[in-house]
Parts: sequence; structure tokens; C-alpha cells
Amino acid sequence: MAVSIVDVAHATGVSASTVSRALRGRPGVSEDVRAQIAAVAESLGYTASRSAATLASGRTFTIGVVAPYVSRWFFGTVLDSAEQVFSAAGYDVMLYNLGSHEARNRFFSKMPARKSVDAMLCLLIPTEQEAAALHTLGVPMATTVGGPRPGFTVVGIDDYAGATQAIRHLVNLGHRRIGMIAGASGPQQWTTPIERRRAYLDVLDEAGIDHDTALEADGGFTIAGGERAMTELLAVARPPTAVFAQSDEMAMGALRSLRKHRLKTPDDVSVVGFDNHELADVVGLTTVAQSVTDQGTEAARLLLRQLEEPDSPPPVYTEMPIGLVLRETTAPPRLRGTQ
Amino acid sequence: MAVSIVDVAHATGVSASTVSRALRGRPGVSEDVRAQIAAVAESLGYTASRSAATLASGRTFTIGVVAPYVSRWFFGTVLDSAEQVFSAAGYDVMLYNLGSHEARNRFFSKMPARKSVDAMLCLLIPTEQEAAALHTLGVPMATTVGGPRPGFTVVGIDDYAGATQAIRHLVNLGHRRIGMIAGASGPQQWTTPIERRRAYLDVLDEAGIDHDTALEADGGFTIAGGERAMTELLAVARPPTAVFAQSDEMAMGALRSLRKHRLKTPDDVSVVGFDNHELADVVGLTTVAQSVTDQGTEAARLLLRQLEEPDSPPPVYTEMPIGLVLRETTAPPRLRGTQ
Repeated sequence: MAVSIVDVAHATGVSASTVSRALRGRPGVSEDVRAQIAAVAESLGYTASRSAATLASGRTFTIGVVAPYVSRWFFGTVLDSAEQVFSAAGYDVMLYNLGSHEARNRFFSKMPARKSVDAMLCLLIPTEQEAAALHTLGVPMATTVGGPRPGFTVVGIDDYAGATQAIRHLVNLGHRRIGMIAGASGPQQWTTPIERRRAYLDVLDEAGIDHDTALEADGGFTIAGGERAMTELLAVARPPTAVFAQSDEMAMGALRSLRKHRLKTPDDVSVVGFDNHELADVVGLTTVAQSVTDQGTEAARLLLRQLEEPDSPPPVYTEMPIGLVLRETTAPPRLRGTQ
Repeated sequence: MAVSIVDVAHATGVSASTVSRALRGRPGVSEDVRAQIAAVAESLGYTASRSAATLASGRTFTIGVVAPYVSRWFFGTVLDSAEQVFSAAGYDVMLYNLGSHEARNRFFSKMPARKSVDAMLCLLIPTEQEAAALHTLGVPMATTVGGPRPGFTVVGIDDYAGATQAIRHLVNLGHRRIGMIAGASGPQQWTTPIERRRAYLDVLDEAGIDHDTALEADGGFTIAGGERAMTELLAVARPPTAVFAQSDEMAMGALRSLRKHRLKTPDDVSVVGFDNHELADVVGLTTVAQSVTDQGTEAARLLLRQLEEPDSPPPVYTEMPIGLVLRETTAPPRLRGTQ
């Protein structure tokens, strides 16, 4: 019988995956260990090839990344930082970019990732059926979006606490007409807009401010959507003096709308965002900062740990820090006749 | 002997690849043709499986994308638009994100894409050795960066003409002290900064303006680099009254530096960028527009054509349109004592 990778693993006292990676010259194995494994493999007459190693170990050395929109800042940044971790550990990345409904339906009905990935970083929040489809892959899964979730390693932030800081800041400046540019959660099951809206309602309530549904507009988490939403808010009978945008990209769209209406920020309308996008500083945007790079790196690291150490503790929820960054788009409301 | 995919292809008069895609339910095959192929396959007793189809056709139905920085706007946007084309045609995307020198060296020394991709979209400009390594893959290749290149389908823009428009605009406004924030070409072989700089020198020359090397600073194509470069330019003995930044991200960094120095744009310093980044409009940036989405879509489309129609004409250079977009960051120089 031919010598298998498992025989080499037994003889060297390491895992089959380590043998495979050592013999294929992939990183993550010290040179000493690699030399030792190569010597044992040679003495047993074992020859490694990628496909042999893959078949023997059941590994493809490929991590699937499912992202809803790779061209949006948040997702591009997570993908970039996670990919660097995967690549340094010797894994390739198979990207599934599911921006359209068609692409998403196609992915979840065909599951092209089946048998082709060792683990999955899933940057969208699956429906129940989608989650069930993902679980049939039988591979470790991680994400950086949403809260704790069964079967997933989640590296997230406290959306509620972050939004609370942003809106309390506006209340503390003296604003009472506080609008919100939200991202509709829609069929994508995204809890982010739900949690950020819950904070908005709770802070208004604790400040004794009546909730006015006319002050909520949907910006769909895009720049253009944020611009449209701000334009809607400016058209209501008593427009807001301050706006909380659930993302920096929507906040930047709002700034564009204000500029087109020849309104000054923060003199006429204060704007606070959420993200600390790399351009937030350029436009002087007050925002809730999160380190998206760190989230991508940490999620990738934890996912690889699950893969390399299947006996390690089960998936956990890791919360990353957030904090309000004060810049130039927020100030007390101007005293006006009607305020 | 078992019935092969080639037998089904002969019997139906289509390519093995079409048979494979039809039987695997991938898009790009009409329902009529699919039904016909399925009937023939059944009558011949042929059963498709992914691995069988892959082995028979030598196809992996995977496109490799090599990108230097997926989190930068240009590359993220090309990746997003190209991936949508690949995915709709039934191809998966294997992403190689080579931002660091280590990642790049690792990729080109190990060539992990070997035997695992059917075609390659390469968003960096390879050195001669790197190009030679890519050619050993023996698959069609396309790119959206740089000029015409042997063996590549290139979808590009005329960097020289674009930069010429930007700098002539500054000259026509009356500027004589015109700085440039450049991206160093460095070891990455990137012709973009070289062509844009050539335009800068030529326009200065045609306007009879002496070139002053003190007015050139390196911004490395990043926001932070653009900010540092602008800060350098403000520190020279006679600072520029206008600056051409070779990318919008560097221009936005320059705007940040100007704001920190309490200088007004365009009153104190005019700034023109290059790209028409999705946030250029938010900050009112005058810039040279290119449609990066169209470049990604077109490169992906041409790459698939090479793959699906190997007898089609050899790779070509497709030039996409550019145009100056006037916004609010450029104006005539203020009359000052020394000007």
C-alpha cells in the first residue's frame, strides 16, 4: 500500500495538515520542523503533491470569503486585512461577491464553495435557510458583521453602544430635532441598522424627546442613498438641526446634499457618522470609530485557529472597541426663532 | 470505455466547456441548449460531476485575480465589477491580494495559481520575471493597469492625455507655481505615475514654466501620503499656488493637509486630482474622471471571450474615455505680492 500523508504525520508526531504544508513549502512551519518532516517523508518513500496532499487531508488550503459588496469601504477593508492573514498562513482566498440578489441566490442555491474551501469568512448575515446551507459545508465559519450567532466565530462591535454615544453627543449639544439616516435591514437580515436604530429611539426617549418618524430616512448604506435621505429630511416641515447617519458613507452623502442646498455644517445642520472611514478625517466628520482592519485580522486569525486546532474551544463572540471621534461636523444648534 | 464529455460535445456540436456548464447548471447556456445537451448526455449514459468536468475539459471554472491592494478604491472597484461579470458567467474568483513585498514574492515564487485558474486578471504591472512566471500558466490574461503589453488584454486609459488636461486647466487659470503630488513608480513597474509625470513636465514646458523639482513630492497613492506630500510642498521657499495630485486619494490627503494649515481651497491653493473617486463629489474635487467600473467590466468581458472563444482575435488594447470634471477646488491664483 502506498505511504499516505497520515503515515508521515504519525511518524513525525504532527498533523497531516502540517506535513502537507511543510512539504509544499507553505509558511507557518519552522525550517527545522520542515527539514525533519521532509527527512521522514523521504525515508518512508512518501512524495507530496498538491492534489495528493489535498486528497489525503481533505484540505483545499483555500478559504472562502463571502462578501456582499467588495467595493464598499467596510467590506473591502475587512477582505484586505483578512486576506493578508490567510495568505501569510499559506491559504488561497476564493471570493464570492454577492452584491446582487441574483448572485446571492445563485450562490446559496448552488453552493459552489462545496468541497472547495476549508473554512468560510462570511461577511453577510445569512437568512435561516442560507445559514443552513452554509452549515452543510461542514467547515469552520467566521464573520465580522452582526452579533453572536450559533456556529460562527463572530468578531463584532457593540452597534447599540456606538450609536448611543453618537446620539447622546447630539443631545448633549442641545439638539432636539435629531434626524436619522438609516440603512434598511431589508431581506438581508442585517442587525446593524436595527441595533443602531434601537439606540436612536432609546436615547431620544431618555432625553424626553418625542420620536418623529418624519425625521427618519433610508440611505441604504451608500453615499448616493445618504444624499437622497438628507434631501428628504431637509424637505420636512420642521427639518432636523442634527442628523445621525448609520454609516460614514451615508454621512458623506448627507454632507454633499447639505452643500448643494447651500447649508453649512455644523452651523445649519450637525452630522455624526459611524465607522471612521479613511476619508472621515478629510471631510472633518464627527463619527463613531471602529477598527475595521483589526476586525478583519482578528476574524481571520480565529478562523485559522479553528482550522489548525479543531480541538480548540468552540466559536466565540469577540467584541472590538469603538469610540466617538469629535471633529468639525457637530456643534450646538444655532438659536433660531422656531427653536 | 466510459463516455467522456468530449463525446457529448461531438454529439451535440458544442464545446466540451459548454457541455460542462450546461450539465452543471451554470449560466451562459440557454435553457433550450441546456435541455438538448442534457438529453444527449443521458442517451449516451454520460454523468457529469464537477471534478469529471474539470478533468475532462482541463477547466477549473475559476478566474484568478491578482491585485496589489484590494482596499484601495481603484482596485476594489475593478475587482467588484469584474467579479460580477465572472460570477454571472459561472466562474468563481480566486483572489491574490499582493499588497506586501512578502506576499508578492511568495506569489511569484510559488505560483499557487498553477493549474487552479482558467484565466487571470492581473491588476499590477509585473516585472519581466513576474510576467514570465505568469505566462507559464498558459492561460489568457487581462489587466486594467498600464499600457499595451504582449500577451495581455489591456483595458486602460490614456494617462498622459488625462494628466495633460488637468495641468493645462491649472495653467489656463493663470497658475505658474504648479506642484505635483506623485506616486513613485518604484519597483512595481507601474507606468501610471511615469505617464502622468511626463504630462506634467510637457505642459509646464509648453507654457514656458521652468520645472522646479522642489514642487514635486511623493504621495505613494495613499491618502496619508498625499497629506504628507502637501505638507512638504507647503514648506518650500515659494510654495505652489496649485497642485496636481496623481490620484484622488492623494488629492484628498492634500485637502486634509491644507485644512490643517488653515489654508483655503481654492483661494490659497488649487487642487486637481485624477480618478473621480466616488467621494470626489462630496469634497468638491476637480478631477480627471475615468470609469473604473467600466474598465473592470470590459476587462472581465474580454477575458471571458478569450476563454470561451480561443480562436478569437489576439489580445488588444482597449482605451476607455477620460474627461476633466470641474468642481470647487480649482480657481485662478489670488493676486499676492510675490505673484
